[in-house]
Amino acid sequence: MKAGNPPTDHGGSMPTIDILLPGFAIDTDQGYPAFCGVFLVRGPDAAGRHRNILVDAAHVGRRPFLWNALAAHGLDAEDIDTVVLTHAHWDHVQNIDLFPQATLVLHPDERRYAHTPHANDWATPAWTGLLLEQLPVREVTDGEEIIPGVDVIGLPGHSPGSIGVVVQTERGRATITGDALHFAYVALTKRNPLVFWDADQAARSIERVLTVSDVVYPGHDRPFRLTSDAGIDYLEPFALTLTGLRPDTLGLRFADASSRPLWVMPGVKEQSKLYEKNADDIQRRINRVPKVVRPVPREAGPEKG
Amino acid sequence: MKAGNPPTDHGGSMPTIDILLPGFAIDTDQGYPAFCGVFLVRGPDAAGRHRNILVDAAHVGRRPFLWNALAAHGLDAEDIDTVVLTHAHWDHVQNIDLFPQATLVLHPDERRYAHTPHANDWATPAWTGLLLEQLPVREVTDGEEIIPGVDVIGLPGHSPGSIGVVVQTERGRATITGDALHFAYVALTKRNPLVFWDADQAARSIERVLTVSDVVYPGHDRPFRLTSDAGIDYLEPFALTLTGLRPDTLGLRFADASSRPLWVMPGVKEQSKLYEKNADDIQRRINRVPKVVRPVPREAGPEKG
Repeated sequence: MKAGNPPTDHGGSMPTIDILLPGFAIDTDQGYPAFCGVFLVRGPDAAGRHRNILVDAAHVGRRPFLWNALAAHGLDAEDIDTVVLTHAHWDHVQNIDLFPQATLVLHPDERRYAHTPHANDWATPAWTGLLLEQLPVREVTDGEEIIPGVDVIGLPGHSPGSIGVVVQTERGRATITGDALHFAYVALTKRNPLVFWDADQAARSIERVLTVSDVVYPGHDRPFRLTSDAGIDYLEPFALTLTGLRPDTLGLRFADASSRPLWVMPGVKEQSKLYEKNADDIQRRINRVPKVVRPVPREAGPEKG
Repeated sequence: MKAGNPPTDHGGSMPTIDILLPGFAIDTDQGYPAFCGVFLVRGPDAAGRHRNILVDAAHVGRRPFLWNALAAHGLDAEDIDTVVLTHAHWDHVQNIDLFPQATLVLHPDERRYAHTPHANDWATPAWTGLLLEQLPVREVTDGEEIIPGVDVIGLPGHSPGSIGVVVQTERGRATITGDALHFAYVALTKRNPLVFWDADQAARSIERVLTVSDVVYPGHDRPFRLTSDAGIDYLEPFALTLTGLRPDTLGLRFADASSRPLWVMPGVKEQSKLYEKNADDIQRRINRVPKVVRPVPREAGPEKG
C-alpha cells in the first residue's frame, strides 16, 4: 500500500488504534527484554488525507517483528508518515531509522534532555540525541492535535518530557501512555515503579491518565479498562512463546512480579540543574548531528508473520 | 579499585577470563531478548601493567546488570581500559559509552561497514557508526596481540569483520567467539544460524574456532568443551529467573530451540558491492561524528548484585 491510499480495514472518520507489537511486563535477573507496546493510529488529518501514525518504535531486538507487523497491516515502513515517541528511553526509540519518510513527534523537554542525559540514567545512553535527530522533528506539548481526534497529553515524571496520545475511538477515549503508566496494576497502586525524573509529577500523570481515559494502552502491558469495582479488565489475551527454555529447564526460576520495587534514579535533583545548565548549548548539539538515515529498498526480514 | 592496581584475585602472569554477563540462547515470538556474553579479560601488558579488558558490551537492557557485575569484580567502569567488540551488532555494542577511559578495539571492516549498513541488516541500525565513534578506536586484524596471551582471531562471515579473542589461560586456549559461534550446538552443526555477510566464510570461521580452542566462550551460550565423543561439556550451570511469568501463565508457550532455522540475509551479494562503493567516503563519515561521551560521576543503578 502506498501512503495516501485509505486502508481497506479503515473506512470511518474516527481514528483507530491497532497494536503492532504488544507490550510485555516481563523481566529477568540477567537483563531487561524491555518489550514496549508499538501502536498504529490511523485516521484523516484536517485536510482529509489518510495518516499512518506510529506511536513508539521499540528497540532493535523487535525490528524484524515490527517489519512483519507492518506487513500484516498492509503497510511498508515508507507508509508511516508520523512517529510519535512517548519518551526517549532506549526501548521505545531505537527503530525510528526504519521510517525515513516520517516526522518524529516528541516533547521539547524530552528531545533536549536526550542530548545531555544524566550518567545514572541507564535508559537514556549518551548517544540518544544522535539517534533522535535522524528524522525531522516536530516538538509538541500538552493539548496539541496530531490529527483530529488524536491529541497529545503531557505526562511528565517518568522522564522529563513523557507524553501520551489520546485517541477518540469508537469505544471511547483511549490513551497510549508510554511509561507514564507501564503496567495495568499501576492504575491501582498509582505509583510509577521506575522514576527517572520526578516521582510526584509521575504520580499526578497517572491520575491524569485515569481521569481522561475510557481505555488505557500502557507502555509494557495489554490494553485495559478499570471496572466499577476497581478491577482490571484486559481487552486482549496474553500470548507469548519462549524458545530455548522449558518450564522444567534446570536452573530456570519464576518470580512473582508483585515484588517489583519502586525505584527513583539517584541524582534526580542534580539532574534538573544539569538540564538547565546545558539548555543554552542544545541547539548547537542538535545542529551538529550528521544525518545518516536515508531511504533504501528493502526485502523481507528473517521472521515471517 | 583504580586502573593499574593489580586485583587481589589475579596474582599469576597468565591472563584470565571472567564472565561478567552470561550469554543466553533464549528467543521469543515477540522479539529478541538478545542477551550476549560479556567477558572480563585481565592480565599484564607487555610493559607489565595490569589491564582490564572488556569483550563485548551488551545492549542497554543489561546496563544496570553490567554495572553490578563490574562492582562484584571490584571494578568501576573507569577501570576498563580496553573494550573489544567481536562485531558491531546492536546487542554487543550499545553500552560502550559507559567506558569513557577505554580504547575501542574492533576490525576495520566491521567499523567501516557499520557506517553504511545494508537496509536488510536489522542487527546494525543506520546509526551504529555514530555510536562506535564515541570512543577512540584501535583497528585490529587476525593475529594481532592485545596483551601477551590475548590475541585477535579473524572470524568473518556472520558479519564482515567478526573477530574472536583467543586467551592462553591456565586451563588451555579459550576463544571468545562473539556470534561467529552463537551457541554450543553450532560446534556440532557447523553452520551459523544467522548470516549477515557470507555463509561459507561463516562455516570456515566455525571450523577455525574448533581447531584453535580448548574451551569456547560462545556469543549467546555458556562456555563449553567438546568431549572426545563430540558431546558438549558445559563449564557453567544455567541460571535464569523470569519475573512476571509463571509456567502455567495462560497464553504462555514453550518451543523447542532445535527448530531454529538457518537464515541468510537477503541482499548479501549486493551488500558487499555497496560496502566497496562506500569505502572512499568512510573517513569523512568517521570524522564528522560529534563526540558526546564524557566522564561523569555516577551512583549505583537500580539492581543490586
